[in-house]
Amino acid sequence: MVQLTSTSDEGRNWEAAKTLVRTAAAGGARLIVTPENTNFLGPHQDKVRRAQPLDGETCTRFRELARECEVFLLLGSFNERSEEAGRCYNTSVLFSSAGERLAVYRKMHLFDIDLSEALSFRESATIKPGDTPVVADTELGRIGLSICYDLRFPELYRELSKQGAELLCVPSAFTWTTGKAHWELLLRARAVENQCYVLAAAQCGRHDDQGLRQSWGHSAIIDPWGEVLAMAAEDPGSVVAAIDLERLAEVRRAMPVAEHRRL
Amino acid sequence: MVQLTSTSDEGRNWEAAKTLVRTAAAGGARLIVTPENTNFLGPHQDKVRRAQPLDGETCTRFRELARECEVFLLLGSFNERSEEAGRCYNTSVLFSSAGERLAVYRKMHLFDIDLSEALSFRESATIKPGDTPVVADTELGRIGLSICYDLRFPELYRELSKQGAELLCVPSAFTWTTGKAHWELLLRARAVENQCYVLAAAQCGRHDDQGLRQSWGHSAIIDPWGEVLAMAAEDPGSVVAAIDLERLAEVRRAMPVAEHRRL
Repeated sequence: MVQLTSTSDEGRNWEAAKTLVRTAAAGGARLIVTPENTNFLGPHQDKVRRAQPLDGETCTRFRELARECEVFLLLGSFNERSEEAGRCYNTSVLFSSAGERLAVYRKMHLFDIDLSEALSFRESATIKPGDTPVVADTELGRIGLSICYDLRFPELYRELSKQGAELLCVPSAFTWTTGKAHWELLLRARAVENQCYVLAAAQCGRHDDQGLRQSWGHSAIIDPWGEVLAMAAEDPGSVVAAIDLERLAEVRRAMPVAEHRRL
Repeated sequence: MVQLTSTSDEGRNWEAAKTLVRTAAAGGARLIVTPENTNFLGPHQDKVRRAQPLDGETCTRFRELARECEVFLLLGSFNERSEEAGRCYNTSVLFSSAGERLAVYRKMHLFDIDLSEALSFRESATIKPGDTPVVADTELGRIGLSICYDLRFPELYRELSKQGAELLCVPSAFTWTTGKAHWELLLRARAVENQCYVLAAAQCGRHDDQGLRQSWGHSAIIDPWGEVLAMAAEDPGSVVAAIDLERLAEVRRAMPVAEHRRL
């Protein structure tokens, strides 16, 4: 999990991400996840203006980085141009170690909240929601995709589980306040109730959007019994852990929750 | 939340529950919840043999206790006779302060697990599952019912939320091992994702069924932001907290998760 403090400086964001991805790959990581808004985290209007297609500069850079490093690489999200004037998608893209685009997920649940004057967002003003849960097969297991605020919707992870997901990715930019209250709790709950690994790369620190918004960090890797295998603090960097599909099979064998579903 | 160490001695279980309910009522509690298997927690075959109808001795006792104490009283569960030979229901019954039977919920998700030789259960061998989520209105708010292992199925609580639940009851007998790993985590997750109070009365200590099974205790009351308002330790007793529906409305206003659902 690569943890970043992305800003409105796309060049700097790319350098930071690239360096951390290369370092993780050199250390033996085989699947690398970057946070939501990896390439740009700045004023909302600029997101739409700078939105790119799936074959634009940002995706091309990450595709080539995946191939160069020979890793599966999830670009946690970038702003993908949509057909709708005034709104873009918030999109995760998974690349294979050969540089193929394996999956594209557009964030479904948008963060429209009003916790306080200082903590108010209306993501739906500039982001068009996706409408399709997405899973993708890799040699490390079947991956289910989601982004940040999706984490509050257990029904999405049930759907990904039903589609066979073993690893649930949650690239995020949780706010400091909601992160402190709920981040680890909800990541662990999704791991336990779906008996999956949860892989959550996060933004951290202060960004330069209008409110000098602060993100919670704490990128994490959780096992299917809810144990935290690795967790970052609040600075940029990366954390790594081993995925063990035998462990996952053992947890599901001992308590076959998926078979016990009634609704 | 009344916490008990129920055994196969029904008379003693009734005395323990009655004493704690009366004490809580005298202290000002208006809604009192007892654990799963309040009246009997002993060998599985005996559950079926001793199963009673909804107007049997156990329900009659608790109905009269609710009226005597003038409290809403949830009999967390008892074994209700079913039409099927060899299996009974695991049933929660909610009584009003006037002694009316407001709701009956039959546990839907059955605990069939094989964690180790010492921790193996096949609840479905002696319990017939219910098939209907249940909510009930009280002057303290709309209550959604569930029992123990149901806690691992977020889709049940989504359904109760859709039906307007504000308080989610989870009378339980979590094992010590699974409770230590997941009890507080899953209670808090259900509270946060559904923005409800969670009311969880639990069995604790060592029972006298075949394996001298040990329960986790830790009866808890959680607020809609996931804060633990009260939590018991591992001995019989009770914990109490104030329910504030204004607090609940505030949390839902600030972050209208229910309106943001997409699946």
